[in-house]
Amino acid sequence: MKDIGFITPRTRFCVLIGNPVGHSLSPAIHNAAFAATGQDFVYLACPVEDVANALAGMRALGNFRGMSITIPHKIEAMKYVDEIAAVDRAIGSINTVICEEGKLIGSGTDGPGALKALVDAGVDLAAKKVLILGCGGAARAIAFTLAQRCTLAEMIMLDINQTLLEDLTADLRAGTACPISHAALNAETIAAAMARAEVIIQCTPIGMHPKVDVSLVPAELFRPGQVAFDVVYNPLETRFLREAKAAGVQTISGVEMFINQAVLQFELFTGVDAPCAVMRQVVMEQLCA
Amino acid sequence: MKDIGFITPRTRFCVLIGNPVGHSLSPAIHNAAFAATGQDFVYLACPVEDVANALAGMRALGNFRGMSITIPHKIEAMKYVDEIAAVDRAIGSINTVICEEGKLIGSGTDGPGALKALVDAGVDLAAKKVLILGCGGAARAIAFTLAQRCTLAEMIMLDINQTLLEDLTADLRAGTACPISHAALNAETIAAAMARAEVIIQCTPIGMHPKVDVSLVPAELFRPGQVAFDVVYNPLETRFLREAKAAGVQTISGVEMFINQAVLQFELFTGVDAPCAVMRQVVMEQLCA
Repeated sequence: MKDIGFITPRTRFCVLIGNPVGHSLSPAIHNAAFAATGQDFVYLACPVEDVANALAGMRALGNFRGMSITIPHKIEAMKYVDEIAAVDRAIGSINTVICEEGKLIGSGTDGPGALKALVDAGVDLAAKKVLILGCGGAARAIAFTLAQRCTLAEMIMLDINQTLLEDLTADLRAGTACPISHAALNAETIAAAMARAEVIIQCTPIGMHPKVDVSLVPAELFRPGQVAFDVVYNPLETRFLREAKAAGVQTISGVEMFINQAVLQFELFTGVDAPCAVMRQVVMEQLCA
Repeated sequence: MKDIGFITPRTRFCVLIGNPVGHSLSPAIHNAAFAATGQDFVYLACPVEDVANALAGMRALGNFRGMSITIPHKIEAMKYVDEIAAVDRAIGSINTVICEEGKLIGSGTDGPGALKALVDAGVDLAAKKVLILGCGGAARAIAFTLAQRCTLAEMIMLDINQTLLEDLTADLRAGTACPISHAALNAETIAAAMARAEVIIQCTPIGMHPKVDVSLVPAELFRPGQVAFDVVYNPLETRFLREAKAAGVQTISGVEMFINQAVLQFELFTGVDAPCAVMRQVVMEQLCA
């Protein structure tokens, strides 16, 4: 018999909202982390269409402490919170909301999670040239975080979608002091960017399960000394990462960003240090199951 | 380490709303019942002031299956649900809401819980004269349920509050076929009602902790063959029940109504038979702790 006798009238709870949520790893990760740290919290998942009322309910229901927000609500949720940091406004999406005495505070942990993954891997970003492949939601979060928090030598943006590319470039130039260059993504611009980039961050869905045998970057463009980071975490090692590793490049899997965005979320929910090893183990067990 | 690894993205949840909720037994009762029956549910408590948005949130958050409603929200909650049975409209309060495919259905289990406590104790109400002491919320729920479901010979209503007394009497006469008599509660009317009543239901807070040494009914008015039922469950045996028992009267504690309202709620939440013995044990453990 499962033991849920620990729940009292003071137990707080966090909820994932999105649609669909049926395959989310978040309940497993956060509940394991709550248990490991003795935090009196429970984490549940809710398929949601009506974001406004999901957030109105969060405000009204005492003990409803935190919310994780996933696709397709990361942009709309911004409308219904009371406070958002300037960087998250610039990014244009949030994945976390906490309720502080009835006030809803939104933030994003995807960008900081990616930065933490790089730092934890020993990558020093100071004065580095960073190539960002793709200009979608993940790219926006990572590009803004790195452009604001690291003194990069240059950030190179590539995308096939000219509108996304120009919008993100303009926003980065308006909102940060980082030198930005950009170009339409094609064989020539990738080759030119790879020739000077020291850190390459793959922010497109290319290489994700089930179409795993594709990569934006020709294998011969990698060179030792580079760092290759892929936001895709299914599979754990994409073709992009496999070919980078074979060329002697340091690689970081998207799972590190995924774990770290949850780690930072946990710390916002509870105010205590996250049990990173426990959270990593749960993710790995679920992904390898 | 507590085990909350059983929670998945499909786990449903129920919540108590009220103010305050800090001493509620409901999380302990319902979580034990979910565990005992293998139902993939969790039960939490939420202090709430904004009832409208608590219910709006329930509608928006998928997997939010059920709500228990306690003081002071049992009346106001009726405004925000989509369906209420006629009997609950007449009673004028609800203590339960379930969400069926986005539709909120309100109901009351206090009256049916009291009736089940009487039936479980072997009391046959057919053609009986029933005295109801008090005309507040509990009295309304019990009086309507008994007047509608049992063919009583007579229901006698007593209260010191003339407005409550006349309103409930009028509502019962309008909404049921049960013969109703009523009188202002005083020494003479209690004596007269006790002389003919076969079942006495004490629906006022008199005798509740901490003022335990008071009773509305003088001990000498009890006589063998009567049934005495007190809605107060703290203490488990009120002075009213103690004196009734000493006079050879069959007694039923308010804890039976409390357990049975939770049993009926559990069945609305889950659709499966409640584990009554488990729920009783949890209540007794908590009340005797």
